[in-house]
Amino acid sequence: MQIDDPAVIAEARALFDRYEAAIAGNDAAMLDACFWADPRTVRFGITEILYGIEAIRAFRASVARYAPRATRRVHITSFGPDVACTHLEYERTDSGLVGRETKIMVRLPEQGWRVVSAHVSLLAGGDPGRVQR
Amino acid sequence: MQIDDPAVIAEARALFDRYEAAIAGNDAAMLDACFWADPRTVRFGITEILYGIEAIRAFRASVARYAPRATRRVHITSFGPDVACTHLEYERTDSGLVGRETKIMVRLPEQGWRVVSAHVSLLAGGDPGRVQR
Repeated sequence: MQIDDPAVIAEARALFDRYEAAIAGNDAAMLDACFWADPRTVRFGITEILYGIEAIRAFRASVARYAPRATRRVHITSFGPDVACTHLEYERTDSGLVGRETKIMVRLPEQGWRVVSAHVSLLAGGDPGRVQR
Repeated sequence: MQIDDPAVIAEARALFDRYEAAIAGNDAAMLDACFWADPRTVRFGITEILYGIEAIRAFRASVARYAPRATRRVHITSFGPDVACTHLEYERTDSGLVGRETKIMVRLPEQGWRVVSAHVSLLAGGDPGRVQR
């Protein structure tokens, strides 16, 4: 198993960047296209527990505008040719709260690279001083 | 790519169960043995942002006792023979708060099945009524 193959990292990064652009542009269709169209897809959001693409689509339809966020750090690892984990650490530019988003991306046989699981949360307390490196 | 091969799900579940037993037993050594011993391992905790196994070990050493939790739901998917995503939805039995934990597990060439990334968070507001299925 090749870990962190640069070509795989680059493909995951491309999906990561499309997703971030869609968040910035409140583009529900693009966000939908980033996710695995399957009942097994999971999204754990700040205030949501969503199982399956239909629940995720219903959530997207309910969001008028995403909170603006600035990237603090991106860390991506890949395992073999078809799987990557992306980690985003961000700051909400409206409130200063610190958020984290983990996405598991898989190159699927028919759908290509998709997010199969996402977990978003705000750092409890929102205190960047608690960050350990 | 075989998705949800029962044998792979079972192997991931075994690691998942060892991890939960270690949380219940406040067993730092067992928790450490569950994680990929590598600088690229990530743990986004409720109040922590940890990059690398050394930061994760330092955090474990700082925890005297984990909050007791009861499982509400476990959802595991696997992709190919070596990768699984585990999703745990739990309730803290001391406070009633709802938590979510996503772990990406990989069968590594030398270390075997390990958690390469974990993300734990409490549902904002802690209101189970917000759960959508």
